[in-house]
Amino acid sequence: MSKSTAPSASRKMALIAFIQAQNCSNFPASWRHPAAATDSTTAAYYQRIARELEAARFDLAFVDDRLAMPDKYNNSHRDAVEYGIRTVKMDPNPIMLAMGFATNYLGVASTCSTTYNEPFHIARSFSTMDLMLGGRAGWNVVTSLNDSEAANYGREKHLGAEERYDRADEFMEVVLGHWDTWEDDAIIIDKPSGRFADPDKVHPLGHKGEWFASAGPLPVPRSAQGRPIIIQAGGSARGLEFAARWGEVIFSLFPTKEVGQKKYQALKAQIAKAGRNPEHARIATACFPVVAETRAMAEDQVALLDSLVKPIDQLVNLSELFNYDFAGRGMDDPFSDAEMENMTGNQSYKQRVVDISGTKNPSTNDFLKVTHRATIREFPLIYGTAGEVADQMEDWFVSGACDGFVTAPTYIPGTYEDFCRLVVPELQRRGVVKSEYLGPTLRENLGIPRAEIGDWK
Amino acid sequence: MSKSTAPSASRKMALIAFIQAQNCSNFPASWRHPAAATDSTTAAYYQRIARELEAARFDLAFVDDRLAMPDKYNNSHRDAVEYGIRTVKMDPNPIMLAMGFATNYLGVASTCSTTYNEPFHIARSFSTMDLMLGGRAGWNVVTSLNDSEAANYGREKHLGAEERYDRADEFMEVVLGHWDTWEDDAIIIDKPSGRFADPDKVHPLGHKGEWFASAGPLPVPRSAQGRPIIIQAGGSARGLEFAARWGEVIFSLFPTKEVGQKKYQALKAQIAKAGRNPEHARIATACFPVVAETRAMAEDQVALLDSLVKPIDQLVNLSELFNYDFAGRGMDDPFSDAEMENMTGNQSYKQRVVDISGTKNPSTNDFLKVTHRATIREFPLIYGTAGEVADQMEDWFVSGACDGFVTAPTYIPGTYEDFCRLVVPELQRRGVVKSEYLGPTLRENLGIPRAEIGDWK
Repeated sequence: MSKSTAPSASRKMALIAFIQAQNCSNFPASWRHPAAATDSTTAAYYQRIARELEAARFDLAFVDDRLAMPDKYNNSHRDAVEYGIRTVKMDPNPIMLAMGFATNYLGVASTCSTTYNEPFHIARSFSTMDLMLGGRAGWNVVTSLNDSEAANYGREKHLGAEERYDRADEFMEVVLGHWDTWEDDAIIIDKPSGRFADPDKVHPLGHKGEWFASAGPLPVPRSAQGRPIIIQAGGSARGLEFAARWGEVIFSLFPTKEVGQKKYQALKAQIAKAGRNPEHARIATACFPVVAETRAMAEDQVALLDSLVKPIDQLVNLSELFNYDFAGRGMDDPFSDAEMENMTGNQSYKQRVVDISGTKNPSTNDFLKVTHRATIREFPLIYGTAGEVADQMEDWFVSGACDGFVTAPTYIPGTYEDFCRLVVPELQRRGVVKSEYLGPTLRENLGIPRAEIGDWK
Repeated sequence: MSKSTAPSASRKMALIAFIQAQNCSNFPASWRHPAAATDSTTAAYYQRIARELEAARFDLAFVDDRLAMPDKYNNSHRDAVEYGIRTVKMDPNPIMLAMGFATNYLGVASTCSTTYNEPFHIARSFSTMDLMLGGRAGWNVVTSLNDSEAANYGREKHLGAEERYDRADEFMEVVLGHWDTWEDDAIIIDKPSGRFADPDKVHPLGHKGEWFASAGPLPVPRSAQGRPIIIQAGGSARGLEFAARWGEVIFSLFPTKEVGQKKYQALKAQIAKAGRNPEHARIATACFPVVAETRAMAEDQVALLDSLVKPIDQLVNLSELFNYDFAGRGMDDPFSDAEMENMTGNQSYKQRVVDISGTKNPSTNDFLKVTHRATIREFPLIYGTAGEVADQMEDWFVSGACDGFVTAPTYIPGTYEDFCRLVVPELQRRGVVKSEYLGPTLRENLGIPRAEIGDWK
């Protein structure tokens, strides 16, 4: 590997937790697990996880989002409600803060959409959270997915992918522009003279663009880490371009180590081409870890998890992800060109289905085989004993397939309890992950320098 | 007093704290006080206050908001920055949660504008916070104030008062509609059958109105108190109508007990006329309490506080409040009819200036005399020994001028430390305020019944 793309020797694997502010993990059947907690609408549920992750020196827990209950399948929310398929979807910011206020070092982040928010609001909200948490906040930038979300915000249709990303690019310029309106040493606080801050060091933004106008200055000074960490998960060509420009943690989904190595290299090169230091962006790939004291016990756990899935879980989730109603057709009926065109949701998943099925007219079953939507096969499943799981993770990391992992729970709280008590000590023993936090801010722990004014331009 | 307007004998005075997510209290010179804390951008600052308030059995702490740094005066933010005049203005929701997660019984609330938000977002955000806090959340509904706020959100002008309230009324219908989409017993959680919730008990909203459309169902179930408490502070005729329709805690500003008695009666009658039980709305009036061990010490404290004010504080604040630039004119120059018309900010304050000055063309000095903007004379100043302060508060309460007080701090943390250690025990001894919380939810402590579906219609 070239110098510019290799993780430095002192670099540790990033450990990130993928949290859903809902009744299930991103494995929708998780709530049916006999040992799954049922108090997911309480702070205690999230704070227990947060403390567990902090004890294991996780870098970051980030909270996913979707702005609607699934109701695309059969044009109704009823199946999602009845079978608990991502039924609840709470505002991720209070969940992130519940976790952040219960910890001292764990980084926390939440997902907010550039399509359904105003950049001034996002800039102010995340800089406030970053101050309240002493520099431990991140923002997972998404452009949203489907018409169900649009319908909660008074719009007929979700924006098309190109428009979404055009808007998102300008959205980022406004948010990061606002985060630069206070210089680091602007505040004086001289009580006798009554001078609070230096007016030469607090600047209006005066943004006037195609999508947004915003005056500023943002009424919030900078935080200990400069500004919140930007998380991004774009997978389409345009999404990768966006991630390469803005992402500091890039949430990827590599199905195999070999695909990961190729895509990791390409993405690091794209980041360099965008004028950024590739070492300042951490690429973390998704996985479902399942660990137990013996391999047989881990296999039994996988079998149990598989048994929890209902076919309806997958159909509801496919419909949500692709913004298309998968109801009322044969599982092997091919989708016409026009039908494929009308799937306006996740474009990188759609391309993967076409690529892997080998046809531009795949069937529902082709979609399910490739996306494994709503099963524990959706993300790479890494299972076995602590040593076996650590082996696989270390192998991906040292062979340049990723800078770390976004660990998705198969159920709460068991997945993190098992992982933190069995796998993390093994990874620490090997020196692959941190045994102690490196500092109080998220940037310090991720090995990303403090953000400086204008460094994103 | 008629039965319908008298507080019941068992009713206690509501104690509410008025918190600013900024470098000063709503007395802008507060940060210049020698004993003022300087860590207002940290969670510790707000959590220290929250714990103090909870130990004293306050019902509620609510966080004010404004969506821009003051920059109306002289068309610049420079004076606000230099002299610390409400310079910082963080997102109030993380501040509210910092306080809520540091306590177990204290109610917490924040201010969000119906003019610059989407109702689906507010409905989801506040119901999530209410769940995370076990039913202790409230929302202070405002329609915002000035063009500086509009300019951060890409709008040329702030909406006029009538349009703001038209939009706000429909906004409330959407938010409360969303909060009613889950019936209380909708959730089943039967793991063996895989049934999560009853689809007959979770309903879409399907709102299509003049300002908003929103499909629903809200993906958030109901909280322990049913839904968050609605706080409202309307003062104009239209504002009072809005408060009478929606407000559960009504934040008033009565300059004297006598005015309070009259307005309290009128507002309670208006609430009844709106078809609501007047006992289910608590009217709390603003005050600055200053208490010390002796009257002389309290008088010295008042003199110190007065000495902290700079004339620029008042001019910057007048400009912000009235959405009008007060720079570059003589302090005694009368405003023309056209100039008065162009003051599109707080309409009830403007009317009060006209009423009290006795002229429809008041001067800047007339404004300052009546609104005392940015001084500790802005709200009624209640000062003296613990006994003297308790006497005045009890007098207002028992004579039907209010159901409680919104106590505004002259500086942080001293005001609440003094008030909680000196005045509250005296009020508790007299049985005027609670000595123990009545339950875990804000509604229980305010003496307002749990919210039922449709009870607001």
